[in-house]
Amino acid sequence: MIGAGAMGADHIRTISRSVPSARVSAVYDFNTDTARAAASPVGADVVSSAEQLIDSASVDAVIIASPDRTHADLVRACLAAGKQVLCEKPLAVTADEAYGVVEAEVVGGRRLLQVGFMRRYDPGFVSLKRTITDGTVGEVRIVHAIHRNASSSTSTDDAGLITGSMIHELDTIPWLLDDEITDIRVESPVVDGFRDPQLATIWTKGGVMVTAEVFVNAAYGYDVRCEVVGSRGTASLAPAEAVSTRVAGVDGVPVRDDFVAHFADAYRIELSTWADEALAGRTTGPSAWDGYVANAVAEAGVASLASGARERVTLKDRPALYA
Amino acid sequence: MIGAGAMGADHIRTISRSVPSARVSAVYDFNTDTARAAASPVGADVVSSAEQLIDSASVDAVIIASPDRTHADLVRACLAAGKQVLCEKPLAVTADEAYGVVEAEVVGGRRLLQVGFMRRYDPGFVSLKRTITDGTVGEVRIVHAIHRNASSSTSTDDAGLITGSMIHELDTIPWLLDDEITDIRVESPVVDGFRDPQLATIWTKGGVMVTAEVFVNAAYGYDVRCEVVGSRGTASLAPAEAVSTRVAGVDGVPVRDDFVAHFADAYRIELSTWADEALAGRTTGPSAWDGYVANAVAEAGVASLASGARERVTLKDRPALYA
Amino acid sequence: MIGAGAMGADHIRTISRSVPSARVSAVYDFNTDTARAAASPVGADVVSSAEQLIDSASVDAVIIASPDRTHADLVRACLAAGKQVLCEKPLAVTADEAYGVVEAEVVGGRRLLQVGFMRRYDPGFVSLKRTITDGTVGEVRIVHAIHRNASSSTSTDDAGLITGSMIHELDTIPWLLDDEITDIRVESPVVDGFRDPQLATIWTKGGVMVTAEVFVNAAYGYDVRCEVVGSRGTASLAPAEAVSTRVAGVDGVPVRDDFVAHFADAYRIELSTWADEALAGRTTGPSAWDGYVANAVAEAGVASLASGARERVTLKDRPALYA
Amino acid sequence: MIGAGAMGADHIRTISRSVPSARVSAVYDFNTDTARAAASPVGADVVSSAEQLIDSASVDAVIIASPDRTHADLVRACLAAGKQVLCEKPLAVTADEAYGVVEAEVVGGRRLLQVGFMRRYDPGFVSLKRTITDGTVGEVRIVHAIHRNASSSTSTDDAGLITGSMIHELDTIPWLLDDEITDIRVESPVVDGFRDPQLATIWTKGGVMVTAEVFVNAAYGYDVRCEVVGSRGTASLAPAEAVSTRVAGVDGVPVRDDFVAHFADAYRIELSTWADEALAGRTTGPSAWDGYVANAVAEAGVASLASGARERVTLKDRPALYA
Repeated sequence: MIGAGAMGADHIRTISRSVPSARVSAVYDFNTDTARAAASPVGADVVSSAEQLIDSASVDAVIIASPDRTHADLVRACLAAGKQVLCEKPLAVTADEAYGVVEAEVVGGRRLLQVGFMRRYDPGFVSLKRTITDGTVGEVRIVHAIHRNASSSTSTDDAGLITGSMIHELDTIPWLLDDEITDIRVESPVVDGFRDPQLATIWTKGGVMVTAEVFVNAAYGYDVRCEVVGSRGTASLAPAEAVSTRVAGVDGVPVRDDFVAHFADAYRIELSTWADEALAGRTTGPSAWDGYVANAVAEAGVASLASGARERVTLKDRPALYA
Repeated sequence: MIGAGAMGADHIRTISRSVPSARVSAVYDFNTDTARAAASPVGADVVSSAEQLIDSASVDAVIIASPDRTHADLVRACLAAGKQVLCEKPLAVTADEAYGVVEAEVVGGRRLLQVGFMRRYDPGFVSLKRTITDGTVGEVRIVHAIHRNASSSTSTDDAGLITGSMIHELDTIPWLLDDEITDIRVESPVVDGFRDPQLATIWTKGGVMVTAEVFVNAAYGYDVRCEVVGSRGTASLAPAEAVSTRVAGVDGVPVRDDFVAHFADAYRIELSTWADEALAGRTTGPSAWDGYVANAVAEAGVASLASGARERVTLKDRPALYA
Repeated sequence: MIGAGAMGADHIRTISRSVPSARVSAVYDFNTDTARAAASPVGADVVSSAEQLIDSASVDAVIIASPDRTHADLVRACLAAGKQVLCEKPLAVTADEAYGVVEAEVVGGRRLLQVGFMRRYDPGFVSLKRTITDGTVGEVRIVHAIHRNASSSTSTDDAGLITGSMIHELDTIPWLLDDEITDIRVESPVVDGFRDPQLATIWTKGGVMVTAEVFVNAAYGYDVRCEVVGSRGTASLAPAEAVSTRVAGVDGVPVRDDFVAHFADAYRIELSTWADEALAGRTTGPSAWDGYVANAVAEAGVASLASGARERVTLKDRPALYA
Repeated sequence: MIGAGAMGADHIRTISRSVPSARVSAVYDFNTDTARAAASPVGADVVSSAEQLIDSASVDAVIIASPDRTHADLVRACLAAGKQVLCEKPLAVTADEAYGVVEAEVVGGRRLLQVGFMRRYDPGFVSLKRTITDGTVGEVRIVHAIHRNASSSTSTDDAGLITGSMIHELDTIPWLLDDEITDIRVESPVVDGFRDPQLATIWTKGGVMVTAEVFVNAAYGYDVRCEVVGSRGTASLAPAEAVSTRVAGVDGVPVRDDFVAHFADAYRIELSTWADEALAGRTTGPSAWDGYVANAVAEAGVASLASGARERVTLKDRPALYA
């Protein structure tokens, strides 16, 4: 485990409690105390550098949960070492940098990298996708996505809201639709100051239009919703707690605080599936190419927010490895 | 209108606003100021006695919303005058007294009385009944009914909870099922003091068992729910507001305060249907017999609460008028 | 009543059953049989021309539910006759024509016209508006509106979808927010053939962005939803039936078929409020100006669908009568 | 693992996929092919008798998922061997037999047995319990429990419905309320043939009344619900799928088919917690005493179904080990 902050520490706990096929053997964090606090409960070693961890003979596979700007280099080091690696999103800070990772993996000739788009493992999103593939909703015309946080933490500037938060929608949408994003426009009702919320309109190759609202200071809680509108009907993802209360004139269910609790099942299934596959020497999860595409679409989104225009997503050639 | 308290005044407003086939021409209330306050906005006369109102040539039909103990006598006066009458529930204070009304109507040879069991006109209950009659739920086995008030107003003693509040369930159940109640048992978790909530178990001739919880100090609001469980599936009545809010960590809808707001549509449709039929010289609503039966079942319920035993409902013969 | 098709006939029934302050005394329809079928059950006269109806001494106020292209002229005739008039939306076929009506009313010096934007009387929309005015949701940032029909009836071409269906949103949004629409952009995922669904993005003077999806061939039923997203929380309008069923592996509620059933309460309250006010010689409902503005915004929307660009809404001066 | 039928095989899969602290090392089933099919994917040994498995030095702890009548003897063998054991419910076929297990464990002087009442680990039930302990609902007065299966499998006779299905409620209720059941009455609307559904009324020492409907041929699906009614408000457990669809006039969510899917999380957390604790040489889950009590209450329920009377639950003394 490289990076033992909130995300990394949570992954360590999840693996220790729920993933029989993996064991956290070594932890590195820039802050040694942080590394020690996370490693100690699971009996993992604390190592003194990311390189040492990656090269260790006792490490079969690597998880990267360090700061975003370190992702691409660390992934390349893992690829160089021939090790399976799960890298938290985003894969890189720019699309170019992400494409460098793609090229590095292509040189190696086999897929070793999985990008941490955990929503693909969320039972709700998986079930939503099934309503498309099994024909329930008919031919998809429109998707409405909503992504709200109680208050901004990492996504604290205009571009960061896209590359840090909206990037989940930018990966989820093409996966859900088995389609590609060709154009994006991002606007905000806020003209001065932090442009939050932002509204994206997205077009796909297959002729679907998507609206995606991302609001990182929504105050009331964490909320992720999605409605797929097709020619036969619609399907809506709206997770609710199993227990409702009727107290003081309100019939209500609690809204979760944060994405870690909300997507706890998704993280568990992601880590478990990745570990099982890594043991078997393969990965079928979100690829380096998917990570690059998400970065490229996000960059088009950032450009759109500045230009006010609909921006075309331009991609480099897709290597055969990701056909 | 005889009785211009909360219920009577609300009926006057409803007729004035929403019932074209009726006009409130005369109002009587024991308290003249109360009568005047209700009559004035709709231009009705205030009369000095109930008898005068009933006998007035300008009054075609009468609504009784005076205190429960006055109901039976007032209804008999209306029957004697040959006028259509809508009497708020309960029809009488005892089953014997209610049966006296039945006998008086039978003597007259035609149905003039409707008892104010407004739930039979509630769009929700009507829709619930349809799931039974159209076969959706299959053969009914069990019904679960819930009836809660924020705090007790009229139902302030053990028997009053049954005769004042639960009596709605005692009429609704046989109407819903097109069946008859044969036995009832009423119990309470509260042993000392006001026995609230109360739990009734009810058996019908057709072999259905019913649980009915009535709780008149439920604190959180007014709530009426009902689930019908059949051999093919279930149907549940659970009215909800159209607008929900997500604020401060709760995704909720408001619970209504009282039965007047909750059943506003039911009262409007009841009054409108009754007035249309009264104009045509007939009534198809809850009959004197239905009112008597509800009183008789309520009495068995009161006896059961005291005895702790399941009590059989014994009814006098049903006159041919109510066949 | 001028026009006795589906809408007009429904209004006649509603007035007859639920509006004590009005009586339908005369009906005109281009098709005399249609007029007769609607007039007969309520004892209204069938007249031989709209002009005759408008000028009749026994007609106090007029409702116009004839084809859209006849609206403006008929309203002007009512204004000329000094009679209160409720005209179904849209007020006119073009914004210019609607502005002609505004000018005609201004000449008369008092408001006589109400436009039939019935949603302003819908209990759900009224309750949604309250969550804004009472501060529940905080400062509004975004609104998401959805408007779906099972299959297209009147809205059968690209522009008609905007002027016939979306026009409801174009009136509802500024009313809900107490704000004005300044810009609109309308797009569709469908490039060839009937451009349905359409997605509008709307900007208001007060800095709110709105997405509005209108889909008139949504197959599954009639559905109108709206979510208001503010700085403190959100409020969502999502009308549901009171009765749900659990049968054959599905826990579900029925979706209504059409807007007449869906907005039955709204139409009843609209007609009742309008009749009460008309009797008192005034109107506080949607004005000629509101009707003109909706037409003007719709025209900008039609232009946008063709141009692909965000279009500015340009309005003539607002007369003092509508201040 | 003793018993590799549906339940045992599912436990093996769950441990293998989600419980890092345990490994299934040996499997026994009366049917060797069944044992082999379950053992093979996880590399476990198939052993030729339950005794051999229990006594094996390579087995640290035992799970019993064999037929109900074998439970008590197998548990006693585990206790004799000094091994932690998780036994599927019911602990025994009769309360006397269950008490024999209690006595055997008391002789050993420490708790080794956990009974498989998995609902105590269900996130929904845990959350429901929290609304009681944190004061949300106030002082509890009434609980309404519902437990339905699409069609009967194991619970195919009158008593079996209580000892096989309702036993879950009989354990859940006292755990939820931190209270004891003193009386039970079980009735059914069905007089001839298989008495399904059954309605239990339950009284607790703390003065709460409970209604519990168990219906094992409910046709539409598997459904477990629970409402806690207190002096301040209510809390309801009603698990729903995250994805709803609107198709063909119905807005619905799927109802799950069976308890294995419904309680998948509960089983995973139960097994994981038990394994962690077993490794540490202790257990805090449902005890032998809890298993005995559930059997005793179930016997009182069976007696009540026959007698038609409210039956008192009589318990032997509670050993200090379970204080």
